[in-house]
Amino acid sequence: MAQPILVVGSVAFDDLETPFGKAARVLGGSASYFAAAASLYAPIRLVAVVGNDFPMAQYDFLRARGVDLRGLQVADGETFSWGGRYDYDLNRTETLFTNLGVFADFHPSLPEDYTESPFVFCANIHPALQREVIGKVRGRRLTMLDSMNLWINTARKDLVEAIQLVDLVSINEAEVRMFAATSSVVTGAQRILAAGPKGILVKKGEYGAVMFTGDEYFVAPAYPLEEVKDPTGAGDSFAGGFMGFLAQYEGTITPAVLHKAVIHGSAVASFTVEQFGLERLKHLTRADVERRYQEFIRFTHFETEHIE
Amino acid sequence: MAQPILVVGSVAFDDLETPFGKAARVLGGSASYFAAAASLYAPIRLVAVVGNDFPMAQYDFLRARGVDLRGLQVADGETFSWGGRYDYDLNRTETLFTNLGVFADFHPSLPEDYTESPFVFCANIHPALQREVIGKVRGRRLTMLDSMNLWINTARKDLVEAIQLVDLVSINEAEVRMFAATSSVVTGAQRILAAGPKGILVKKGEYGAVMFTGDEYFVAPAYPLEEVKDPTGAGDSFAGGFMGFLAQYEGTITPAVLHKAVIHGSAVASFTVEQFGLERLKHLTRADVERRYQEFIRFTHFETEHIE
Repeated sequence: MAQPILVVGSVAFDDLETPFGKAARVLGGSASYFAAAASLYAPIRLVAVVGNDFPMAQYDFLRARGVDLRGLQVADGETFSWGGRYDYDLNRTETLFTNLGVFADFHPSLPEDYTESPFVFCANIHPALQREVIGKVRGRRLTMLDSMNLWINTARKDLVEAIQLVDLVSINEAEVRMFAATSSVVTGAQRILAAGPKGILVKKGEYGAVMFTGDEYFVAPAYPLEEVKDPTGAGDSFAGGFMGFLAQYEGTITPAVLHKAVIHGSAVASFTVEQFGLERLKHLTRADVERRYQEFIRFTHFETEHIE
Repeated sequence: MAQPILVVGSVAFDDLETPFGKAARVLGGSASYFAAAASLYAPIRLVAVVGNDFPMAQYDFLRARGVDLRGLQVADGETFSWGGRYDYDLNRTETLFTNLGVFADFHPSLPEDYTESPFVFCANIHPALQREVIGKVRGRRLTMLDSMNLWINTARKDLVEAIQLVDLVSINEAEVRMFAATSSVVTGAQRILAAGPKGILVKKGEYGAVMFTGDEYFVAPAYPLEEVKDPTGAGDSFAGGFMGFLAQYEGTITPAVLHKAVIHGSAVASFTVEQFGLERLKHLTRADVERRYQEFIRFTHFETEHIE
């Protein structure tokens, strides 16, 4: 039996533009992407806020996967909305507008039973809120946070304190460099590890991800897709596939299990980017992910029977 | 017994600037890097040109590794020299100057016994010369060429004809996109494969390499280095480690052997960039490469006993 995962993050409406198309006001937000991915593996408890303009039917697909939405607050005002544009270099995002709406005053509130959650993912929200949420959860087995350049620049002290509290940090390579003031991702990762966490997942967009744990590391390439339609949500669905996979394990999480989890994250994210917004994740199954996982074995292993 | 590899390419003096230092008039050139790498595995026959200003002692280290230099012409004039600068984004090169010298009129001339070379690597020279060299070699088992944006733009017809002649193409990801006029490396690689070669090695700098063979692919991450001092020659030493490894096999080259060869290429290139110019390759041993190869197993395999 998979164990529950508490996720706190954003729910948003996204306007998306890529060289391959446009999508207006589609469901997005870090908590949505994480929950859509992780719910393939484990029971999810979602903590976020939407405005009273939010059509709850948008979340029917999550409800159908058993996602617990009691932590989703409905506040008076507009749901967070964001507009982003990607050029052919899909690793770079241009923000067209940010309308925080009710997310500006978001204060996570946990239903009582949520405070017993073995797995906790704090998506990209203010690090002071991340700390507060983690502090409320008793009996936590594995905690992970994601962050962004904004907090590195404006709330570094809070971010460092949040990082000291968690087991794992999920962060992209530009943010590693910025946080640690070094051009070397390896050096940067080691500096972040020195702050306390047991591991760092460094996301490299179309180039995959690297996990650093102490002196060890593990490299997961991205799945070589013919077409990436929309990279939005890749990082959060990566985190969802990763943590969802881990939540299946009641025993000790060994390095071998962590490595498989990274590949699951990479496999899930490779589906996310195939379509705009959450479209692909809505219809994704564990069998789809398992098939792609087998492909990852084939195109990465060179010292086993798999490739013969 | 490893089989001989014929390499044709450039020998140059490089002026190099990176954020980590400078080096003036150090030995470089595609043939030098390839030979330095491949000579760890197999007998090398080097075809290139230098000016009469070239101190032959520069090649003592290759001679010591048994590299056959009878194909190295000495012409009246200056040796090719090149100046390049890299910013923190070491994937991008800024050319400061190019002085072709005797390389401008280079016409490869093969000692008679070179025309029986089972392995041939045409480094980045004019594709018409690549075709000519390949055409002269009888009984060739495996041929590979490397190219660059210059030839894509100025000698596309010759390049396509050269590509049709070889088994493998080594090319960087920006060149794949340029050659195939697509933003997708996967689509671009398939378009190049449609021209005839059996495989393409797409080099991605600090992100490693992907080999496409028909509908299959294999992904090799780069070794996560704390510091990359100078990326010059990474691509040619990758090709050298790759082809050198293959030259050890007398039998059929299976996909499994190709995959191991890609990892050897990636391992060798990871040493190249640790120091300026050829410094690290000069002192590199097969045992060094083998140790790093074992590390590659550890940080890429997730479905074997290796990682337990």
